[in-house]
Formats: sequence, C-alpha cells, structure tokens
Amino acid sequence: MNASLLLRVLGVLLLIVSAFLGLSLPVALYYGETRLAWAFLVPIGVNLLVYAVGHLFTRRPKDTTLSVRSGYLLVALSWLSVTATGALPFVLSGAIPAYTDAFFETMSGFTTTGASILTDIESVAKSLLFWRSMTHWLGGMGIVVLTVAIFPLLGIGGLKLMDAEAPGPSVDKFTPRVSKTAKILWLLYIGLTLLEVLLLVFGGMGLFDALTHAFGTMATGGFSTRNVSVGYYRSAYIQIVVTVFMMLAGANFTGYYRLLRGRFRSLLQDSELKTYLIVFLAASLAIAFNLKGFLPGGFPERVRAAAFQAASILTTTGFATENFGQWPHLAQTVLFALMFVGGCAGSTGGGIKVVRLVTLFRQASTELRYLVNPRGIFSVRVSGQSIRKNVIYGVYAFVFLYLCLIFATMLVVAVGGYDLSTSITAALATLGNIGPGLGLVGPAANYSHFPQGIKWWLSFAMLAGRLELYTVLLLFTREFWRR
Amino acid sequence: MNASLLLRVLGVLLLIVSAFLGLSLPVALYYGETRLAWAFLVPIGVNLLVYAVGHLFTRRPKDTTLSVRSGYLLVALSWLSVTATGALPFVLSGAIPAYTDAFFETMSGFTTTGASILTDIESVAKSLLFWRSMTHWLGGMGIVVLTVAIFPLLGIGGLKLMDAEAPGPSVDKFTPRVSKTAKILWLLYIGLTLLEVLLLVFGGMGLFDALTHAFGTMATGGFSTRNVSVGYYRSAYIQIVVTVFMMLAGANFTGYYRLLRGRFRSLLQDSELKTYLIVFLAASLAIAFNLKGFLPGGFPERVRAAAFQAASILTTTGFATENFGQWPHLAQTVLFALMFVGGCAGSTGGGIKVVRLVTLFRQASTELRYLVNPRGIFSVRVSGQSIRKNVIYGVYAFVFLYLCLIFATMLVVAVGGYDLSTSITAALATLGNIGPGLGLVGPAANYSHFPQGIKWWLSFAMLAGRLELYTVLLLFTREFWRR
Repeated sequence: MNASLLLRVLGVLLLIVSAFLGLSLPVALYYGETRLAWAFLVPIGVNLLVYAVGHLFTRRPKDTTLSVRSGYLLVALSWLSVTATGALPFVLSGAIPAYTDAFFETMSGFTTTGASILTDIESVAKSLLFWRSMTHWLGGMGIVVLTVAIFPLLGIGGLKLMDAEAPGPSVDKFTPRVSKTAKILWLLYIGLTLLEVLLLVFGGMGLFDALTHAFGTMATGGFSTRNVSVGYYRSAYIQIVVTVFMMLAGANFTGYYRLLRGRFRSLLQDSELKTYLIVFLAASLAIAFNLKGFLPGGFPERVRAAAFQAASILTTTGFATENFGQWPHLAQTVLFALMFVGGCAGSTGGGIKVVRLVTLFRQASTELRYLVNPRGIFSVRVSGQSIRKNVIYGVYAFVFLYLCLIFATMLVVAVGGYDLSTSITAALATLGNIGPGLGLVGPAANYSHFPQGIKWWLSFAMLAGRLELYTVLLLFTREFWRR
Repeated sequence: MNASLLLRVLGVLLLIVSAFLGLSLPVALYYGETRLAWAFLVPIGVNLLVYAVGHLFTRRPKDTTLSVRSGYLLVALSWLSVTATGALPFVLSGAIPAYTDAFFETMSGFTTTGASILTDIESVAKSLLFWRSMTHWLGGMGIVVLTVAIFPLLGIGGLKLMDAEAPGPSVDKFTPRVSKTAKILWLLYIGLTLLEVLLLVFGGMGLFDALTHAFGTMATGGFSTRNVSVGYYRSAYIQIVVTVFMMLAGANFTGYYRLLRGRFRSLLQDSELKTYLIVFLAASLAIAFNLKGFLPGGFPERVRAAAFQAASILTTTGFATENFGQWPHLAQTVLFALMFVGGCAGSTGGGIKVVRLVTLFRQASTELRYLVNPRGIFSVRVSGQSIRKNVIYGVYAFVFLYLCLIFATMLVVAVGGYDLSTSITAALATLGNIGPGLGLVGPAANYSHFPQGIKWWLSFAMLAGRLELYTVLLLFTREFWRR
C-alpha cells in the first residue's frame, strides 16, 4: 500500500467535505446561531490540517495508480474519516454530547441510513440539522463518486474505486471515462434535488425544510427535521411529491441517462425496473387494503399512506407519514418483507437490491428446468441479457454474506436484551441503510436507547451495508493484509 | 407418465401403510378402545381397494423403469395418498372432526413436522395417539426409502427416486445397490429407535410413552402424547436421553454406517458434523447463560434445559421441556436463528440443512479471496472434498427458493391477521418441519386457531419442506407437464 498516496487522497476528500461543512456557516448566521460557528470551524480546521500534512509533509508519490487493495482500503477509510470528523459539530455544539452517539448519527447520515439517536429533533439548532441532512446528500451519491470526478485531476485512475463504491452489481459503464460518468451522475443528482426543492416549496414547505427533506429523499436517507418525520406535513401534494422522488432516487440512475439519450426501449426491457415497480405497486395495494377501517379517509387516502410507506422502505429511505409500527399485522409484515429488497442497482438506495433478487429468481427457475431436462441448456437472462455464471456466483455470495450479517447483527442486538422484532429489524434497517424498523426501533422510536457497544456494531453494519459488504469485510480477511 | 405403473406402486405403498395402521388395533384392544377399531379398519379397507384396483384391474406394465418425471410425481403422490387415507382414523373416530384438521395433523406427522391442531392431547384415545406417532416414524426415514427396499421386488430401479426423496444434497451412495442402502438405513433406524425405547423405559417411562416419544425423536418429528410435551417428565435422565437421541436422529445416518465399518477418521473430517455440533454447543451455552435468574436451579439445570431446546429446534424435532415462548429475548432469538439451520443431510431432520450452509459459507469466503486475488484459483472444499460449481449452484438455488417460500408462507399467514413473530415462525416451523414456533404457534400454543385456507397452505409448506422443495415445486412448472 502506498501510505502517502492514501493520505493525499483522503486529504482532498476532507477538503471537499470542509467546503460543505462551511455551508452550515451561513445557515447558522441566518438563524442567529453564530455561537455554533466554532463547532463547524474546528472540524474544518482538522480537515485542513490532514490535507496540509498529506500535501506538504509527504513527497508527491511517483506512482499514482491505485492497486485493487489500496482502492478498497481508500473507500473504507474515506467513509470512516469523513464520519469521524463530520461528527465533531454535534459533539462540540453539545447537541449530541457523547462521541459514540455523534459518530452513530453521522455514520447514519453518510451511509444514507437515517437511523437517529435524537429524541427531540426540533430542539436541535438549524445549522446542525442542515449539516445532518447534508451528510445524507453527500453520502447519497457516494462521497467517493464525487471524488471520482476530482481524482483524474490527481492523475489517478478511478475504475477500481468505482467498482468498490458503486451501489449494485452492474453500473453500466456508459461512458468509458469514469470521471465523465461521475460528473453526469452528479449533475443528474443535483438536478433532481433542485427539482424536488422547487416542487416542495411550491407546495408550501419552507425553504429550509424543502432543502433538508430533498437531501434526505434523493439520498434515500430519511433524516427529517421534524419529530414526526414527513408526517408533519399533512398535505397530500407534499406526501405525493416525496413518494415520487423516493421512487426516483431508488431507481437506477443510468436509466435517466438512457432517457436523456432517448433510449426508451431499453428502459422497457429493464427487468429490474419492472420488478421494482411491480413490488412497489403490489405492496402499496396490499397495505392499502389492510389499512381499511384503520386509517380515517377513503381508499385514495389509504393508498397514499400505503404508497408513501412502501416507497420509503423499499427504497431504504425511511421517512414516515404515519406510525407504521402501530399498523395492522399484515401491513407490518409486508413492510418487513420489503426490508429485504432495497432499491435498484446504481441508485442511492441500499439493501440487497432488486436486480440481485431478480437474477437469483431467474437462476433458481432455471435450476428447476434442469431437473426436468438434465441435458438441456438454459441461460439466465435479465433485461434481455444472458448473465454469466461467475456473476451469479458473486451475487449469491453477496446475498449469503448479507443474510449472515443480518443474523449476526440480530444476535448482537438481542444480547442487549431486545425482543426478536426489534433485533431483526434493527439489523435490517442498519445493514440495509433504511433507518426505522419495528418494535423499539420503529418510526415513533429511535436508536438512543441502545448501549454503546451495540451502537458501534450498528455503525459498522451501516458502513458494511453501504459499501456493498465486500469493501468492509475484505479488511477482516487474512488475504487482504498478506503481501 | 405410466399411469398404471404409478397406481401399482402407490398400491404397494398403501398396503405397507395398512400393515402399520393395523398395529393400532392391538393398542386399541389393550386400552379397551375396541369401539375405535372400525376407524382403523376403514382406511385399511380403502388402501386394500386401491391396491386391488391397481393390481387386478390394470395390466402389468411391460416397462417397469421409472422416468425422472414419474419418479418425482410418485414421491409427491405417495405422501399425498398416505396422508389422505392416514387422516381417516382421526375423522372417523371423531377425535378430529374436520377433515382439514385431520389432514393437517397427518401431514404434520408424515412430514415429521410435529405441528398439532390438538388442544387437549391427553384426552385423545391411545390407539389414535399411537397412530399419530407412527406417522412420524413412518415419515421419518421416508416412507419411500422404506419402499425403495420393496421396489426391487417389483423390478423398478429406484435411484432416481432416491435422489428425489433422500433428505439433503449428498447422501453417500455407500453401497451401489439402492435397495441395500435402504435396508441398512432401515435397520439403523429401527435399532436406534429400540435403543431409545429401552433407555426411556429404564428411566421409568411407561412403554406406551416410551414408544411414541421414541417414534417422535428418531423421526425428528415432535408429536408428544402429553399436553406439555416432554416437559411432563421432569427427570433429568429422560430429558438427557431425548436430547442425545434428537442429536443422533439429526446427524447424517451414513456416519453410523462409517462408524460400524470403523472409519472413524472420515467422521473427524466431516465438516457438516463438526459444524452441527459447534452450532449445538454454542446455542446451548448462549441460551443457558441467558436463562440465568429465569429458570430455577443452577448452571447444570440451565444447560440441560437449553441443550434440550437447542437440540429440539436445530434437529427440527420440536419437543419442549419448557415454554420457551416465555424465555428471555436472547434465548428466543437464538432459537429463531436455529430455525434457519436444520439437521444434517441424510438424517430425518428438516430445514435448510447444515451441509448446505457450510458449503455456502465456504463459497462466500472463496469469493472474498477472489476479490483480493482475481487471478487466483480457489476451490470450495467441504469435508476435505472439492465441491463442483454445479453442486454449489444447485445448493444456492435451493436456499433461495427456500427463503422465497418462507416469505410467501409468512405473508399468507399474515393475511389471516397474525403478528409478524407468529407469521414468520409458523412459516419456518412448517417449511422446516420443526413444529412449534414463537408467538401464537409457540410451544404452549398450537395450530388449531388458523383458518382452513392457511391450514391447507401450511400443509403444502410441510410437504414442500419435507420433499426438499423441488419434488413439489416441479409439479407447478410448465416444463414438467410438457411432453
């Protein structure tokens, strides 16, 4: 590993984060929270120091190519370092006194999980809430995808990094140059965020709430600035806008690129997109029917509430308009099942991801055909393309490791004395970057009651889930550290 | 498909079952239940009729080889027909008035599940309880394995059938001739059952209870003749004997064959056996520690209770000595996790099976190594043997379909208005042939409260789980029925 190169790249990354930390300063000024300015200035200073050490006190590396291992290490260190320094404003301001809690909250932000330890969100200073939602937005598209657009300036080929970072198994390499790809994704992301802000403000939401909720939506994060989440806004229009943008954020971003290029047909052939929409519709309808006699209002109101929650869990956002922890059993069970799915590949959503499940379902069906015709030749096709065995192999390994981590996390939480429903959904909600679960981590509850050890484990689970497991798990293998 | 051949084989099968139905007659006589004799004589008559129709009114088929498809169909039909007629004594005697309930109970018996709809077991006539436990014992080693020993008399090669029937992915073909294999398994099964009966009687259990509980143990079934299951017997000796025999019944039977042949070393190399024992020990200890301050008595008493329950769930037996539905959360969560494991391949246990999980764990670890060394060559080794990719492929497909069926069953149960904990453990307990789950299907509860539709679905789940999914799922594919 090339330590000075790693330090230099991390320095650049922290420099960029500092710029976004700085954005909280005008917010503090506007809301008369100038006494909090130093809470942002200190981490900015720390970040600048790391940058300075990296660039002034080490020699410029001659070889600026990253090995596979360094790439993985860099990704993991990136998230850890931005979380470690990004947590400082919460601690320094006194809003979250314990560093464990602040680290958990910031990791939850950067991993776009949205699990919170705050018990009274509305009492927290606006500039801090702004930074909290900003961590979502930065994490959303991947801080590293962001930096992928910067890396070429440093002369570092970023493809390996892209592989380690990009959500999902098959980000189309739609332009050969990664930096160009990153820029297009970045512009799409900014564009959609601005569009949602406009639509929310148009619906009567204040600019501050519109910005922070748009950050939370586009990142499929779920941090809200309101104690009752999006439920604070009873306007059907606002709830529908958020529902639509959650679904947009959970869809494969390369699809938008194809749309812009006028390649509609390839979208229609997209097995993942179709399944994503079918799962969303089926879950929404099942929940809507189950809510009969439970929620006031007619069928349209029930569909709206059901669709919002189905989209929120499916895309791993985690916003809530209702306390679904109190919903009838079937509705809760459907939401529980959605927690195993997640968004599309190439989206900001977490979870196992739709395309993986589609691939495995096709493969399993193919195995059934082999049993009847042992000498037949069947290929596993997804979106009209035949999938190579090695890819399916990798997908299976991913899902298996994912389930192993869910069980491990469930048992860790249970050691703290928590019930089955809380334990398993806390595991799903952190590893899948969803946020709320059921039971004591339900939408009306939060993660503050967990003991420190469990908070650290859950922070690890959020990171592992966000970085598609391998990036984090590899660091714990002997092979990785062997020369 | 060769309909007359199928009918003839089913006839032989039903004839054998009739012989075992007949064993309830002396029991009825001994306990003064002669008024119930006709409840057994009618199904015996029905079975004889089917045999007669098959053998007297159809021509002897010239071609007596079974195609792959006919093999699968025969296995599924075998279980359905013995369940359909085996349910009659319960209905005719009035002990279980509704046929749906009787079918459920009998399916639960033949699939060695042990899920019961009886609310007061001790009020049921002894001869009926004897038949109920007998269905376990017959199902245990597989009625069809039994008939595999008969098939050669009919001149039918049974290997394909063995593939479709044998529990687990890798029953060693330890003797080239299937009928010989079946006979050895059968003798081992009878021997171990008799040994357990002797040990139980020696511990002061009555012969009737010793027989029925030995049937339930060796089949990893779980039907008890007592309302509080094995918990009726507070003797440490009896509980330990049952624990040991549950573990013996959940281990690969080919291991006993190897032991008899003196091949100890191959047992020590057995990855599945090692994992099976480690999981059992780890779960027992975790539960024992968690029971501190909950159960009266010292550490040995807690270990005994924990080991009994861990063995009962891991091997998918389902006996209970305590109401573990009231145990502390961690203990319940550990038991919940065990519900996903199951016994060893080649045992009477159900579930996913240890060897499958070991294989997938090894494969997933190998994938991690490939990430670090993309050009490396790593083989997946289990029990010292390299596993072919196609086998791993099949194992993954199995586990994926298994999980799909768990989710489907969970949702079906939830439609009935049941809570998440009940829904998911009812799915695990039926598909995995365990019996009791948590919540409303916990050890102190039963399956009587489910609506008819759910009972039929759960009966289907029990059958699918017992026949290793494929045998049942195939019947629902288009390919299967295409010429």
